[in-house]
Amino acid sequence: MKIAIFGGTGDLGRGLAINFAAAGHEIVVGSRSQERADQAAATLREALPEGTFTPRENVAAAQEGDLAVVSIPWEGIESTIPPMADALAGKIVVSVVNALRFGKNGAIAEQGDAIGAASCAHKIQDLAPEAKVVVAYNNLPAAGLQARHSLGADVLVCGKSKAAREEVIELTSAIPGTRALDAGPLANALILEGMTALIINLNRRYGGEASVSISGLESAPERPV
Amino acid sequence: MKIAIFGGTGDLGRGLAINFAAAGHEIVVGSRSQERADQAAATLREALPEGTFTPRENVAAAQEGDLAVVSIPWEGIESTIPPMADALAGKIVVSVVNALRFGKNGAIAEQGDAIGAASCAHKIQDLAPEAKVVVAYNNLPAAGLQARHSLGADVLVCGKSKAAREEVIELTSAIPGTRALDAGPLANALILEGMTALIINLNRRYGGEASVSISGLESAPERPV
Repeated sequence: MKIAIFGGTGDLGRGLAINFAAAGHEIVVGSRSQERADQAAATLREALPEGTFTPRENVAAAQEGDLAVVSIPWEGIESTIPPMADALAGKIVVSVVNALRFGKNGAIAEQGDAIGAASCAHKIQDLAPEAKVVVAYNNLPAAGLQARHSLGADVLVCGKSKAAREEVIELTSAIPGTRALDAGPLANALILEGMTALIINLNRRYGGEASVSISGLESAPERPV
Repeated sequence: MKIAIFGGTGDLGRGLAINFAAAGHEIVVGSRSQERADQAAATLREALPEGTFTPRENVAAAQEGDLAVVSIPWEGIESTIPPMADALAGKIVVSVVNALRFGKNGAIAEQGDAIGAASCAHKIQDLAPEAKVVVAYNNLPAAGLQARHSLGADVLVCGKSKAAREEVIELTSAIPGTRALDAGPLANALILEGMTALIINLNRRYGGEASVSISGLESAPERPV
C-alpha cells in the first residue's frame, strides 16, 4: 500500500513510517515544502535504507497515498488539513494526534473547548469531511517503535466506519509485537488521545516506556510475539 | 480501615465492597434510606459472610468512613454529594463514577458539557470541595472482581493529592491480582472514566471481560499473581 505520512519527523510518525516501510509499504513523506519533505525522507532512509520513502509536498502526498497517517502537532491541524481535504476524500485517514499540555504535575489531556472539537480526530474529520477518520497508534511506545522492537502492545482502533477500522487493524500487522483491537465508534477518540497523557505521566513516575495491553477477551486474535 | 461505599449495589461498587471486606476492612454501606442500606448490606453479607458490612444512611456513612468510595450512577452526583460534603471534608473520596451513554454503535464517554464538569470526579470535587478526590478502579472487570478472581489488571490512579493517590495505591493491595500505578493529576480523570466505554465496546466485540495492563515501566512494583 502507498501510505502518506504527515508529520513523519515526530517520534511517533517516524516510528510508524519505519515500521510500515519495513513491512513493504511505500511511504509518501508529506511536508509543507518539498525541501522539508526531502530532508524527512532522507532521515527515514538513514534509519531504514531498504525502505521506500518518497518525499512530496502535503497536497501531492495526500493525492498519492492510498491511506494517510496524520502525526502533526495538534496546533497544526487547522492550517494543514484544509488544503488536503479534497485529496483525502474517500480515503482512510489515521489520526495519531494528541492534544496535550504540560503542567507542573504532568501531562494533561486537553478537552473539547481547548481543541475546538470533541477530539483532534473530530477536528480533522470536520476539516476533511469526506475522509474516513480512524484513531489508532496514539499510545504506542515511540522509542521502541523506532527501534523496531517487538512492542507487546495492543492498538485500540476507533472510527466511524467499521470497514475502515478493519483495514487499520490489518495494517497494524506491520508493527512487530502488536495486536489491533476494534474499540468502536469515533466518539471515544478523545479517550484514546488522552491515554497518552496518562502514559507520559507513568513514564515520568516509573521510568521506561509504557505499553498498554488488554487481556480477558474471548475471541480476540492472539498478540504476535 | 473503615470504608464507606456509596452505590454498593452496582456491579463495580459491590465488587469493591466484597474485596475490601475480604481483606479485613470494615465496610460502611451508605444508601439514601436505612432500609435500602440494610438490604444492600444483607446482600453483601450473603456474598461474603465473614465480611463486616454496616448499613447506614448516606450522611452517617460519610461520617463513619475513614475513606469513601463513590460508585453511584453519574446522574445521581448532584443530589447525593452535597448533603455529605461536610462529612467528607479532609477525607479521601475515590470516584469510580463514569458518565456513559449508549448509542447504536456502542458505549460513548460523555464529555464536559454533558457532565457539567471536566469529569465525574471533578463534579464530585466541585460539590465536596474539601474532599481529596481520587479516580481509580473505573476499569476493573466487575464480574471477575465480584467473584474475587485474580484479575491480572493494573489500576491507574489519578488525583490532585499525591499522598491521597499513594493511600489508594496501598488500599488496592486488597484486590487480588491487581497493581495500582500513580498516573498523575486529577486533570486526566475523564480519560480514566472514558476508558470504561472503550472496554465495554471491546467486551461487546470480542466477548469476555477485558482487563487493562501496562508493561515496560522500569521501577513499577510487580503485579501480584
